[in-house]
Amino acid sequence: MKPRPTELDAVANDAVRGRRTGGGGDRDLWRTALTQIEPNKILMRGYALDEIMGRLTFGEAIYLLLVGEIPSPSMGRLMEALLVSFIDHGATPPSTLAARNTATTGASLRACVAAGVLGFGRYHGGDIESCMQFLDAGLALVRQGTNLRQAATTIVQKCRDNGEVPPGFGHRFHTRDPRAARLFQMALELEIEAEHIQMIRAVEMVLHDHPDEHGRTLPVNIDGAIAALCGDLGIPPTIADALFIISRVPGIAAHADEERQRQQPMRQIDPKDHTYDGPSERRIPERRK
Amino acid sequence: MKPRPTELDAVANDAVRGRRTGGGGDRDLWRTALTQIEPNKILMRGYALDEIMGRLTFGEAIYLLLVGEIPSPSMGRLMEALLVSFIDHGATPPSTLAARNTATTGASLRACVAAGVLGFGRYHGGDIESCMQFLDAGLALVRQGTNLRQAATTIVQKCRDNGEVPPGFGHRFHTRDPRAARLFQMALELEIEAEHIQMIRAVEMVLHDHPDEHGRTLPVNIDGAIAALCGDLGIPPTIADALFIISRVPGIAAHADEERQRQQPMRQIDPKDHTYDGPSERRIPERRK
Amino acid sequence: MKPRPTELDAVANDAVRGRRTGGGGDRDLWRTALTQIEPNKILMRGYALDEIMGRLTFGEAIYLLLVGEIPSPSMGRLMEALLVSFIDHGATPPSTLAARNTATTGASLRACVAAGVLGFGRYHGGDIESCMQFLDAGLALVRQGTNLRQAATTIVQKCRDNGEVPPGFGHRFHTRDPRAARLFQMALELEIEAEHIQMIRAVEMVLHDHPDEHGRTLPVNIDGAIAALCGDLGIPPTIADALFIISRVPGIAAHADEERQRQQPMRQIDPKDHTYDGPSERRIPERRK
Amino acid sequence: MKPRPTELDAVANDAVRGRRTGGGGDRDLWRTALTQIEPNKILMRGYALDEIMGRLTFGEAIYLLLVGEIPSPSMGRLMEALLVSFIDHGATPPSTLAARNTATTGASLRACVAAGVLGFGRYHGGDIESCMQFLDAGLALVRQGTNLRQAATTIVQKCRDNGEVPPGFGHRFHTRDPRAARLFQMALELEIEAEHIQMIRAVEMVLHDHPDEHGRTLPVNIDGAIAALCGDLGIPPTIADALFIISRVPGIAAHADEERQRQQPMRQIDPKDHTYDGPSERRIPERRK
Repeated sequence: MKPRPTELDAVANDAVRGRRTGGGGDRDLWRTALTQIEPNKILMRGYALDEIMGRLTFGEAIYLLLVGEIPSPSMGRLMEALLVSFIDHGATPPSTLAARNTATTGASLRACVAAGVLGFGRYHGGDIESCMQFLDAGLALVRQGTNLRQAATTIVQKCRDNGEVPPGFGHRFHTRDPRAARLFQMALELEIEAEHIQMIRAVEMVLHDHPDEHGRTLPVNIDGAIAALCGDLGIPPTIADALFIISRVPGIAAHADEERQRQQPMRQIDPKDHTYDGPSERRIPERRK
Repeated sequence: MKPRPTELDAVANDAVRGRRTGGGGDRDLWRTALTQIEPNKILMRGYALDEIMGRLTFGEAIYLLLVGEIPSPSMGRLMEALLVSFIDHGATPPSTLAARNTATTGASLRACVAAGVLGFGRYHGGDIESCMQFLDAGLALVRQGTNLRQAATTIVQKCRDNGEVPPGFGHRFHTRDPRAARLFQMALELEIEAEHIQMIRAVEMVLHDHPDEHGRTLPVNIDGAIAALCGDLGIPPTIADALFIISRVPGIAAHADEERQRQQPMRQIDPKDHTYDGPSERRIPERRK
Repeated sequence: MKPRPTELDAVANDAVRGRRTGGGGDRDLWRTALTQIEPNKILMRGYALDEIMGRLTFGEAIYLLLVGEIPSPSMGRLMEALLVSFIDHGATPPSTLAARNTATTGASLRACVAAGVLGFGRYHGGDIESCMQFLDAGLALVRQGTNLRQAATTIVQKCRDNGEVPPGFGHRFHTRDPRAARLFQMALELEIEAEHIQMIRAVEMVLHDHPDEHGRTLPVNIDGAIAALCGDLGIPPTIADALFIISRVPGIAAHADEERQRQQPMRQIDPKDHTYDGPSERRIPERRK
Repeated sequence: MKPRPTELDAVANDAVRGRRTGGGGDRDLWRTALTQIEPNKILMRGYALDEIMGRLTFGEAIYLLLVGEIPSPSMGRLMEALLVSFIDHGATPPSTLAARNTATTGASLRACVAAGVLGFGRYHGGDIESCMQFLDAGLALVRQGTNLRQAATTIVQKCRDNGEVPPGFGHRFHTRDPRAARLFQMALELEIEAEHIQMIRAVEMVLHDHPDEHGRTLPVNIDGAIAALCGDLGIPPTIADALFIISRVPGIAAHADEERQRQQPMRQIDPKDHTYDGPSERRIPERRK
């Protein structure tokens, strides 16, 4: 982390006197390694965008942009699944309600999306770092010679001593988060599964075998599964944060659009009073599997 | 469009008196057709999310969520390309600069992304509707019997009479927007190309053959290409707006993250003083083509 | 309004080639007339900020910054009242709910405020321009010789012919908006009242004498009162828009803070299920009047 | 701080099954103590809004709403000065640049303001809590019997040992922040000055007498002055955070509006290349002092 700056709200004033930030009087150039723009050419991480179009999927391009390299086919498939997993969770997450409340005032779609994106605070998809630190604490014990089960037991106990639920666990509604289960299954099949996922599965078993004093068994949730998967994919926490946001933006946009298409403006939105009237459960056609 | 509400800033007060919005005293349920949440099951447009994971790409899932059906393979490929096309355009679009300026203050990634998303105003990827209306005006003439070239000439002339540039055309830097060209090429190859794309290609030729008084030939740009493609894919303007935002969010997130990783906090960001130091131009490996 | 730019998403690329925006190759300086920063000196519209502090109120300083001159004592008093009038309207306006939904996720206060600010769409405090145009249409008739009552009748009828409610009128809950009444009273006492307020009062009387077919008499609301007052104060619509936002930000911040102080995180916020438990009605002490 | 919730992204699902948040099956009402809405009556902290209008200034109403009581005349004057102090700081703070970059895309004023509000991260007006904690550490020593100067020396040394600048100190451009000086002067004159301000003045003297190894004397800045003043006014850190945002919103709005009025859309905004062309320095007329 960068050192705390020695001034607040003042660097920007340099323009008034023509002084350049960063000391000295030279014209330092700042650098970006993401995308280069040339006349009639756009190079993203070195690859021409019009060459990427049609050859990489959006999910693969996202990985390329954020991580810097084209993913292997296996990593690409997991990236797609990860991005699909968090794409929407119905009308009632607070972020989605913030977007719908913005939409009902007649605001533009981008205002609705921005409002929804802001609703990923500490308690809602914004805690990847805690989860990764939690798993890393267990992995540190493993590297020191503790077995996996014992390491998991130790880090769970530490949470309980602090009166906390382990980050990445728990879901009021789902007792088995289907998205987490599917990610783990794919990671196993694609031979990506490694120590982070193994650690979180071990924690899951410890919690299952030793419910807390309320008798709750806490399932691993999608935040935890994504944190573990990113750990094993070598994706740092800040990029994992970005993947959450990227994944959920289509859901937020869809709800904002639906609010404007189907509802009266300036309506009072009570999450308790809604129901689903979309398609019944259906299966993906065989030829797509 | 919905009728203008008869009250402002008041509907929300009904809660105080327990009166329900929408007249009558009944408990009306409001409806969503997007995603249904059941215990241990998440159904997006009727499909189980854990079944979609691993079988549809993120791009295909976005189409499914926003439009309501799984896209055909051809439409899916175009959707991926469309989403890739707008994913980033370097460090200097105003939306990206807004995100970087937010990042330099130490704000969270979601705050940076929200700030960037807000920078898609009327002049910057937010004018799909104008472009679609422009093309539809030309197509109305065609349906009345005018030939394509003449219809294009007419709608271009109308813009010129108003002192305006046709929406979807022009780029200060690119004389040929590679992203637009690629989208049109793929639409042709995948046999999606239809009247909207044909209309915009006709306008492109009229502009080419008859430069304005400044001698400028205006190329079709990515906004125009996406508008035309969405017209032919049957994607309404509001959903097309959403696709712009969804596409660019990874770019905004990548720049915000790079700003925080590489730069001092509270720096003065001069777009003129930057350069690219990422990978040199490289080609996608053959086995991916 | 500025002419539509001839390029989209490209101006920002000039930095790559070192070309300056705005034609020519010279280093043009862009200008601001708001605040000048010198070493140890901050001049807002020419006045030293530390001289303004303690001599002008926040409301007067807001006027000075937005309009460019120190307000007269009467205008200053009306500015304070205008800014107070919209400061909050309870927990259930959609913008406030967006802020509370953001707060419940653990997001920062500024994220909550930003989310709330976005909820001022077309239907919610964001329609000053329509109201000013409506009043100006009536005033144009008056300047042509029509009497006030007849002009008001004409513009009301035009709205009714379009199936619309006149902008600035109507409130589901209040049959007499106390904030509008108070603003008009103060404008009269301070001898600020002029043609815009007179026009909106005339419209109010026409609506009162001629209810619509539903038997509704529509009171003037705070949006309309502010629009009329700004018209008579010579404050342009864009600045009036700013005053709405400035006024409501404290309310949004207060609700976001209260949500975090009093409620559990990640709670489901049903506006219907809330009640007030603050101080009972009380009077401002005499010595402050 | 509230205990970490035991579920993530699930509470909101209760609506689907009709289960209420908070356990039990009863319809619990949630409570707000801020503003009560009755037909034709709006009570803010118990006071009728139309009674507050014209009797309290906007600054006093802000205090009432956020803190819960009408401020004394002295506290009211300090509140006005505090709110004026941070109202704007020119065109180049990152938050203001984020707002201008949003404005240049043609986005609405509220989008520009929201983007600017998001730019108050950890390093930019968002560090009140650190500063208050820093001062409280010193005050704890004083309560234990250490004299003021020694306590100040101790807490400064602790920062230096950590390689940090004391929070609330330092300004690249100003060697004496005129806003901080004025706040302290007013606090003294109005007999509000107490232990927090005394502590920060003591730290200021320690830093002045013992420059760091770079020879820098760090002046107290406006963030520090506001933090100290809020400490002595009994205003908690979260409310102090709100005051920063409330204060700066007019500045952000003014710059966004000026950007739209004076500049071409989609321009590249280089903070280095701007100059001031507003009024020359002028004095507030005598009759206002």
